[in-house]
Amino acid sequence: MGTIIAVDIGGTQMRAASYAPDQIKPIKQKKIATLASEPGGFDRLVSVIQDVWPKDGSVEAIGLASPGPLDPHTGYLLAPPNNPLWHNFPLAPNISNHFGVKTFLDNDANLAGLAEYRFGAGKGHHDVLYITVSTGIGAGVIIADRLLQGFHGLAAELGHSIIDPNGPLCSCGYPGHLEAYSSGPAIVRYVLGEIDAGTKSSLKRDENMNARDVSEAAQKGDALAIKAYQRAGEYLGIGVASFLHAFDPSIVIFGGGVSQVGGLLFDSFHVSLKKHVFHPRYLENLSITTAALKDDAGLLGARALAELKLNS
Amino acid sequence: MGTIIAVDIGGTQMRAASYAPDQIKPIKQKKIATLASEPGGFDRLVSVIQDVWPKDGSVEAIGLASPGPLDPHTGYLLAPPNNPLWHNFPLAPNISNHFGVKTFLDNDANLAGLAEYRFGAGKGHHDVLYITVSTGIGAGVIIADRLLQGFHGLAAELGHSIIDPNGPLCSCGYPGHLEAYSSGPAIVRYVLGEIDAGTKSSLKRDENMNARDVSEAAQKGDALAIKAYQRAGEYLGIGVASFLHAFDPSIVIFGGGVSQVGGLLFDSFHVSLKKHVFHPRYLENLSITTAALKDDAGLLGARALAELKLNS
Repeated sequence: MGTIIAVDIGGTQMRAASYAPDQIKPIKQKKIATLASEPGGFDRLVSVIQDVWPKDGSVEAIGLASPGPLDPHTGYLLAPPNNPLWHNFPLAPNISNHFGVKTFLDNDANLAGLAEYRFGAGKGHHDVLYITVSTGIGAGVIIADRLLQGFHGLAAELGHSIIDPNGPLCSCGYPGHLEAYSSGPAIVRYVLGEIDAGTKSSLKRDENMNARDVSEAAQKGDALAIKAYQRAGEYLGIGVASFLHAFDPSIVIFGGGVSQVGGLLFDSFHVSLKKHVFHPRYLENLSITTAALKDDAGLLGARALAELKLNS
Repeated sequence: MGTIIAVDIGGTQMRAASYAPDQIKPIKQKKIATLASEPGGFDRLVSVIQDVWPKDGSVEAIGLASPGPLDPHTGYLLAPPNNPLWHNFPLAPNISNHFGVKTFLDNDANLAGLAEYRFGAGKGHHDVLYITVSTGIGAGVIIADRLLQGFHGLAAELGHSIIDPNGPLCSCGYPGHLEAYSSGPAIVRYVLGEIDAGTKSSLKRDENMNARDVSEAAQKGDALAIKAYQRAGEYLGIGVASFLHAFDPSIVIFGGGVSQVGGLLFDSFHVSLKKHVFHPRYLENLSITTAALKDDAGLLGARALAELKLNS
């Protein structure tokens, strides 16, 4: 197998790197601003790929990670948030035509999961459940060494699992999703609701409050802030219990900013998970851990996707 | 590939059949009583396999379908309901040793799903979600032409998805599972609860009431009976919405006795599914249908399992 080029098209940055076979360290890498709402995005993507192109000129495949929704089977972006110019946009086909190289695309959460499986916390596992808890809740699922993509390429949208059909609205507009209970904005929304209802807190009502503000107040002992994270962890445990029943993985890996608060979220998560898993065997030899790759997950996932698709 | 022998070990009957390659019609078939609670079950299983053994003597593999929980990776039964003699029992290894033939085991719901994918309503599809709605709710999931089994072999237990953490108790003892809303006994329990609460109905309070009694009353126009099925369909739609978000199949196939009532269950199911699927793309070109194989599903699934494992 020859050189692979990977690009992680993030909300603020496009990061590109070229990789020699079996080398974890890139040959070249480059970062530029995404400027998602400005024209010229495709040219910027082309130029950052050219910047990391290896001197000998041989590239076997290009892998692209992008926020969804997108279709990994056709390589089309469907309706990326913050980028109206790329609605229904044939991203992978256009890159493939431009460079004359096979090009593969999938969403950032799927590819972060794939990266953890290949290069990170999930190495050596065959059945991996990766969950990113951040502004949203996304997931990537590996089943028997293959990435779960689905018929339309929309599988593993586990943040939109219905936890309680009468629950609060999710960012997607539908009620009671896991994301509406355990994401960063959900934690903040709970705190604001409680303050409005008269619960005392060191946190003042502030529309710009974020999950980090709440975790800082919790570290200082604020009871409402602590409760907000505990509640998020409890619902996360309910969601993950159902995911174990569905996928029965050997490892659950948590990525995303909110999952970095440690026991504040995960003490109640573990209690809730044990309480809701319906057969103890699911927990036998199950690892539960945090992501190892951090910022490189998208890039390494895009690389892993290209390698996986070339081999299948 | 040579002859495959398949056995479906049901609660009341063991059904065995031998199959020539590429022939859907069995060479021989035999049915005997399971007598699960009586000793000698293993000898009965051996004898029914001998009864369908082909004259030329060559058998390439044996496939077994049994109620779970079981471990398809080791071929052990863990704790089959109604059969305390087979707890932690090495069923597939013992059969394999006895006949000197590779033997594979999986649970009846997974194998009914696999059978529908290979021989039934799911033929030609690569991503299949099979759900059986009966005394319990079970499932079998095919992802990109492979059976989802999981690390412990306990994947696809979708009847135990948590629909509402504060909901009624499931038969497994845990709260708010899909099975506690939409299975036959759940429909009956709802009717009995409403009668106790004073709701008028042509159905009389009767501990032996079953889902068929309720469906017969519904066909005659009983409002409570109709509502009981509508409610089951509504929750089934909520559950399946989450399953689409998780697996993104191209077909959903319903098996099991309760799913044979037609619009009584499925009218509200379809409304609820559309209401809860968070992106319309999941429903594009999605088939939703009932099982084609009926009683032969377990047998054909055990056969398909053996063929699949021989080829992988």
